[in-house]
Amino acid sequence: MNNKPFAIHPRWIICADNADRILEHHAVIVEHSEITAIVPWPEGADRYSGIDVVELPEQALIPGLINAHTHLAMNLLRGFADDLPLMTWLQEHIWPAENRFVNPEFVADGTRLAIAESLRGGVTCCNDMYFFPNVVADVAAQMQIRASIGLITLDFPTAWATDADDYLAKSIELHQQLQHNPLLTTMLAPHAPYTVSAEPLRKIAALRDQHGIGVHMHVHETATEVADFQNTHNMRPLAALAQHGLLTNQLAAVHMTQLTDKEIENAAAQHINVLHCPESNLKLASGVAPVAKMMAAGINVAIGTDGAASNNDLDMIGEMRTAALSGKCAAADAAALPATEVLRMATINGAKALGIADRTGSIETGKQADLTAIDFNKPELQPVFNPLSHIVYSANRGDVSNVWVAGTQLLSKGKLTMINETDLIANAQQWAQRISTGE
Amino acid sequence: MNNKPFAIHPRWIICADNADRILEHHAVIVEHSEITAIVPWPEGADRYSGIDVVELPEQALIPGLINAHTHLAMNLLRGFADDLPLMTWLQEHIWPAENRFVNPEFVADGTRLAIAESLRGGVTCCNDMYFFPNVVADVAAQMQIRASIGLITLDFPTAWATDADDYLAKSIELHQQLQHNPLLTTMLAPHAPYTVSAEPLRKIAALRDQHGIGVHMHVHETATEVADFQNTHNMRPLAALAQHGLLTNQLAAVHMTQLTDKEIENAAAQHINVLHCPESNLKLASGVAPVAKMMAAGINVAIGTDGAASNNDLDMIGEMRTAALSGKCAAADAAALPATEVLRMATINGAKALGIADRTGSIETGKQADLTAIDFNKPELQPVFNPLSHIVYSANRGDVSNVWVAGTQLLSKGKLTMINETDLIANAQQWAQRISTGE
Repeated sequence: MNNKPFAIHPRWIICADNADRILEHHAVIVEHSEITAIVPWPEGADRYSGIDVVELPEQALIPGLINAHTHLAMNLLRGFADDLPLMTWLQEHIWPAENRFVNPEFVADGTRLAIAESLRGGVTCCNDMYFFPNVVADVAAQMQIRASIGLITLDFPTAWATDADDYLAKSIELHQQLQHNPLLTTMLAPHAPYTVSAEPLRKIAALRDQHGIGVHMHVHETATEVADFQNTHNMRPLAALAQHGLLTNQLAAVHMTQLTDKEIENAAAQHINVLHCPESNLKLASGVAPVAKMMAAGINVAIGTDGAASNNDLDMIGEMRTAALSGKCAAADAAALPATEVLRMATINGAKALGIADRTGSIETGKQADLTAIDFNKPELQPVFNPLSHIVYSANRGDVSNVWVAGTQLLSKGKLTMINETDLIANAQQWAQRISTGE
Repeated sequence: MNNKPFAIHPRWIICADNADRILEHHAVIVEHSEITAIVPWPEGADRYSGIDVVELPEQALIPGLINAHTHLAMNLLRGFADDLPLMTWLQEHIWPAENRFVNPEFVADGTRLAIAESLRGGVTCCNDMYFFPNVVADVAAQMQIRASIGLITLDFPTAWATDADDYLAKSIELHQQLQHNPLLTTMLAPHAPYTVSAEPLRKIAALRDQHGIGVHMHVHETATEVADFQNTHNMRPLAALAQHGLLTNQLAAVHMTQLTDKEIENAAAQHINVLHCPESNLKLASGVAPVAKMMAAGINVAIGTDGAASNNDLDMIGEMRTAALSGKCAAADAAALPATEVLRMATINGAKALGIADRTGSIETGKQADLTAIDFNKPELQPVFNPLSHIVYSANRGDVSNVWVAGTQLLSKGKLTMINETDLIANAQQWAQRISTGE
């Protein structure tokens, strides 16, 4: 924690607040972990004489990006199996590799690599779903990133748990351990309607109400999955989730590429949140979520990268661009998904979906100082007519210069302040060697 | 020109040759402007004792990327008008700005900024289409990038020419001036079927045959454009181009988002080249070109970024990723547009479309040393299972470390060797000031 107050004076402050303010000649004042003021600068400097000022003369400061859906540890499987049909990819490559290698060491090393990548790309909060969430929580806490830890549940055994009841018992135990952590929150994370059966899903709805925990779940990712479910259960997965009491404003439903207009209307009426993963959906040819329609219906849509095995990066700036571009094309309207909305999807909408909008997701007095600066001082980012659309359409993860989480600077001039990158890279290369040779 | 021979010894050499070779433990030998050998290394080093060796221990070396369609000078309008419907964007923003500002100074400054961006992103050759192509040629020659200069033609007057005959006279004059330039070639560039009428198009077909120059033209960009043409001419634009004798293997047709199966079959039979611009097509909601179908039919498809006013960058690495992702989704097949094919689209296929595959587009003995190195030594690019798919799905323009054009190093450790970036940025900011205030 940074205990000395300081000011950040960028060229632009893009607030992603309710008024979508873009401020010039202002500074953000940070005390302890919090934004305590946003003041005209240098006019307001008198009140803060002697304060340290971080001068960012060519930078735009935005709320730290929130990666609303990912599987951090899968960074060790980045590019392991590309250009394959979804089921071949999953059944012949990803699942066997996971069965062989996933253990606490794999999860710790993969999560560490993923958090380093996330911070370097301006991400200050990740919503994770993976095995050994206790390990994910430990690594996130060590690395001082904000994270929502997915309390994963499946019907079948893995190295982490033996059956649904075991997953749920471990989930609640971990939730209770993390109760008072300043950076970590939790979400119940039943994997998907086709991997978690009715009884554990009903238990999850009860645990949600008992403990006040949100639910994070893959829903309607592919047409095949929806058709298979319909064949087996004589209803679509969303209808089954409704029966189990899961369609509430505490549900964060990932993917949602296959939706009827009626399902969109119903999702809006139930105030469910959608976690949109455009690059993963395109790469696996799962389809394009009808984002413009969902937004028009009033649904809160956030953006996630998915895991690095299906993307193949955790680059939320690139993901914003893909969301905007694919969303416009799907809507056949170049004015759909404007940059202002897309930045909200990657910041405040993510915070809302994770139930943490009271503390992060926008640059506002009283919120935590989760902040990302993007440097425009390079030929490929000139000229600048609109700093906000510039971030969505022209900037790039490599342009992120500074990142603070809860007031602690974790990236400075593009370099991680607390992590040895050389060690991380060597470790990832050792894992790749093992995974490639199957040993 | 670099006259002393040197060797480049990267971790991987990705050749994009007919065998799609990926070599390890090899070096590329460059003498004068040419690749004179690719040899096992260090075994082959004896033959080159005393040679300078560029060691790139964590890099992949690829053929320099070829941006097969762009409007370089429009870099000064990057982000000038986003999130607007196509016709509003064009008629109310882009065209008025062009009418007000386009002159030789604008074209020189915009082209310079764009070439700096291109080199920083690993692009060694651009296929341009813009006003004052003589100025584009001068700037490209000064900056030592390879370029195909578009000899633009329109029906209506601009600052560059008064009518179609004036455009064509200036085109042939410039073509003849550039005949013996080692880095520059030309293409006749009638803007589009809806802006160039039948008579000049027939003259262009004749000039193509007389002078042996290819033709570069926007074709079937949007459904509206095709429908309007059909209403006016009672045929689709491609049918009109066939009547004018333009559908040959010397045509490079940009966009082609609106195609019937019959048109694809015909395009393949005529061996026309397609210049695919996926990000521009998505951003302007023009549609998605049926690339998997075109490739299956045997059409040569290359990739371009389009201009920075509609993209908003000249990032060919990002464009490869978007081409792969959007192509898979459009084909509803995750195995469509595999990375190997997409890299070919951004290198050798571009060279073929521009008629310069004898000298560039792949890493092969006897070709010009147009080379790009990509540095994987960072957390977001680890681990590496397949260096080729890694470039398409994980790498980023900011990861380009070295660029050579015809053996001359223009980028070293991510820095331009011959261009003052500070001056470029200041100049772009001055233009933005003028354009914003309309003065």
